[in-house]
Amino acid sequence: MNVHEQPTATLARFILGSTWESLPARVQHEVKRCLLNFLGAALGGARDQAVEYALAVLREHSGPPQAGIIGRSERVDRLTAAFVNAASGNVLDFDDTHYPSVIHPSAPVAPPLLALSEGAPMPGATLLHALALGIEIACRLGNAVTPRHYVRGWHITSTCGVVGAAAGAAKAMALDFERTVWALGLAANQACGLVESLGSMAKSVSVGNAARNGLLAALLAKQGFTAAPLTLEGERGFVRVLGETPCIEALTEGLGERWEISRNALKPYPSGVVLHPVVDACLSLREQYQIEAESVQRVRVRGNPLLRQRADRPAPRSGREAAVSAQHSVAVCFLYGAAGVSQYTDACTNAPAVQSFGERVVVEEDASIAVDAAQVLVELSDGRSYERDLAHGLGSLERPLSDAQLEAKVRELASRCDHAHRVPALIDAVWGLDRSEDAAEVIRMLA
Amino acid sequence: MNVHEQPTATLARFILGSTWESLPARVQHEVKRCLLNFLGAALGGARDQAVEYALAVLREHSGPPQAGIIGRSERVDRLTAAFVNAASGNVLDFDDTHYPSVIHPSAPVAPPLLALSEGAPMPGATLLHALALGIEIACRLGNAVTPRHYVRGWHITSTCGVVGAAAGAAKAMALDFERTVWALGLAANQACGLVESLGSMAKSVSVGNAARNGLLAALLAKQGFTAAPLTLEGERGFVRVLGETPCIEALTEGLGERWEISRNALKPYPSGVVLHPVVDACLSLREQYQIEAESVQRVRVRGNPLLRQRADRPAPRSGREAAVSAQHSVAVCFLYGAAGVSQYTDACTNAPAVQSFGERVVVEEDASIAVDAAQVLVELSDGRSYERDLAHGLGSLERPLSDAQLEAKVRELASRCDHAHRVPALIDAVWGLDRSEDAAEVIRMLA
Repeated sequence: MNVHEQPTATLARFILGSTWESLPARVQHEVKRCLLNFLGAALGGARDQAVEYALAVLREHSGPPQAGIIGRSERVDRLTAAFVNAASGNVLDFDDTHYPSVIHPSAPVAPPLLALSEGAPMPGATLLHALALGIEIACRLGNAVTPRHYVRGWHITSTCGVVGAAAGAAKAMALDFERTVWALGLAANQACGLVESLGSMAKSVSVGNAARNGLLAALLAKQGFTAAPLTLEGERGFVRVLGETPCIEALTEGLGERWEISRNALKPYPSGVVLHPVVDACLSLREQYQIEAESVQRVRVRGNPLLRQRADRPAPRSGREAAVSAQHSVAVCFLYGAAGVSQYTDACTNAPAVQSFGERVVVEEDASIAVDAAQVLVELSDGRSYERDLAHGLGSLERPLSDAQLEAKVRELASRCDHAHRVPALIDAVWGLDRSEDAAEVIRMLA
Repeated sequence: MNVHEQPTATLARFILGSTWESLPARVQHEVKRCLLNFLGAALGGARDQAVEYALAVLREHSGPPQAGIIGRSERVDRLTAAFVNAASGNVLDFDDTHYPSVIHPSAPVAPPLLALSEGAPMPGATLLHALALGIEIACRLGNAVTPRHYVRGWHITSTCGVVGAAAGAAKAMALDFERTVWALGLAANQACGLVESLGSMAKSVSVGNAARNGLLAALLAKQGFTAAPLTLEGERGFVRVLGETPCIEALTEGLGERWEISRNALKPYPSGVVLHPVVDACLSLREQYQIEAESVQRVRVRGNPLLRQRADRPAPRSGREAAVSAQHSVAVCFLYGAAGVSQYTDACTNAPAVQSFGERVVVEEDASIAVDAAQVLVELSDGRSYERDLAHGLGSLERPLSDAQLEAKVRELASRCDHAHRVPALIDAVWGLDRSEDAAEVIRMLA
């Protein structure tokens, strides 16, 4: 097959030919929701220890103050800003989730665009459009390697995110066809990130790199730096090397007709998305039956095998591990009736009551249960037991957060870095960003 | 098994406990040879187009002028310097080669150490020692995933190099046990690089990243940034995710007794190492039988299956592709009687005589032929034919470059960026570096 008929070339032509006006209205609105959600998540994560440490090191090596950091006063070069903002946006596990692949696409894709918006003038619609395309490419690449890629141990947000970041940056920089192909190839060549790292700060390095190196790929391509034309689909390319059962067609099937962003959901809780129906079920059981934590003898959680693979994590020791621990999440639901950011701190994780409750939680798998569903059975010490069989958790594709719930989420997160007062203006700016001449107004409000 | 008995912990203890004085004399000498060879290769590559483009982009984002670039006058931050020097050192494919894994270890491992040597005072022996340890760790990791890792499509110099770079930097920075474990984990989490990229500039990005991100890993770890303790050997860690038939034992077996650097060879030709016996055979056939290029009807090259996998590349279009093309390499041997840097330029690659000769070259595989051996059969148009069956090419472990040949190689490479006059002092400095109080004298001579 001719190189120009291969998937990378098709994706590059799609990126070049797409216009903001041609996007369906629901896609246009959804990308605004993704941006707002990302900004909220980054405000919430901006003072995380991992971000502080990374910034302390990167600041020493940073170039000119080209770009702002969300929720902070430092200005750094745009590659560094992309790294730090991606780390902030993802560190709380409160960013968006593409259900088919479980990619969190906005954290790697949005930061390069925010950094670029502070350079050459960029209309707001350009930023939104590039974000939609970057999300689209990241998620399609994820579809092409799902599910075996993640199961094997690849942190898919990082591995696919770098290619989405490059795609978005290429669009925002208006690269030509050849340079867009190179940008995608240079990004694919930098794909990395291991599931082993989840639960440690290391996760933030591969997510940060995904944003930084996606932007680097586009900047290098613009300069004339070449890549192999088939780095995505070639014999020794991304899909075949990082995929176990590669589905090359997923890269381009229905391109421009079906949008992956419509399968991208926003989280109500700052924990692994597989845990959300569990949290919902626990919270509603507790409320309905007025269950006291000390009366609980055992909680049996049944879910899709992914739940056990990713979140059967007894006795976590840090807030980061707790965010992917079913034991912890169930414990805080019954102990505190909440599973928000405050329930995923190191202190809360190590509280004796939480650890002790966690020992009473059992995780079981059942392949017949969907990823966004869960069954929770609570056995009390007096012999009573209650069960909840939840088809869809809040924040799933079937039960999305409303715009109002999203705004409330952003308000709460912004209060974690003293930016709550800027949230009303931020919300207005994002909803109206496609009519703004200056995309940089968003980052200027927060940095 | 206890975390402290796992391979990563064993490697970290080895790095911490090792002393320069305890290294065998042949290891001490070999690491000097590796450093000198790397510096020569970087001098030769310092003006390559890929390096120019990368530097043009990175300079705009570079922090303070902390570190020099080999063969150039620019000064950049130490992360950027590590990237650029690694790219320069590897771009000509003229760096060292660890035979069992085919890793080129010095390009990713040496640059972070050169950059660090310009910061806090560092004795020369510390730099050499850290280089030896970084090479050791990179190559052992390579052994743990060889051969299926490369065959699948991983550019092993990049993927394993980042971990070696972190190991060397951790030693040079005297990180404690816990931080050394984190540095190795943070590096493993950043491992990337696809074989698909070979033959394009993209290769230089993953090699550059390996050096940069290995240094970043050590700097982050020093700051307190954590990683999972088993990122190398865990269920979702490097060896199992990037390896097809992982051999975890290879990480630590005979550690401190057997040194991988003794299986690391220096190249006489700036092409893929699998091509060297082919080049040797062609050059000696041409000389012995006074073969005229125009009289050659066909050249049959037989080698290990790796030769065909990596170098059966008809009609390359760039010097970079030519460096991994048997067709090109055979052509220049018979046309020019040489296969040096001048024979791997874009111009030489696209010369009609070279392209036309390449069409007469056939590559065949034979699993019974060793990687450093080759059989070449030349058929002339008058019916005569000559054959050479070469057991070991020059530069193989059995026929290493002598110190004098290495010095001559460095002199030739240095002339490519007008640094030839500095080579005598450089050679003296490297041979005596273990007695120097100031490791930075090396980089100061060249940058």
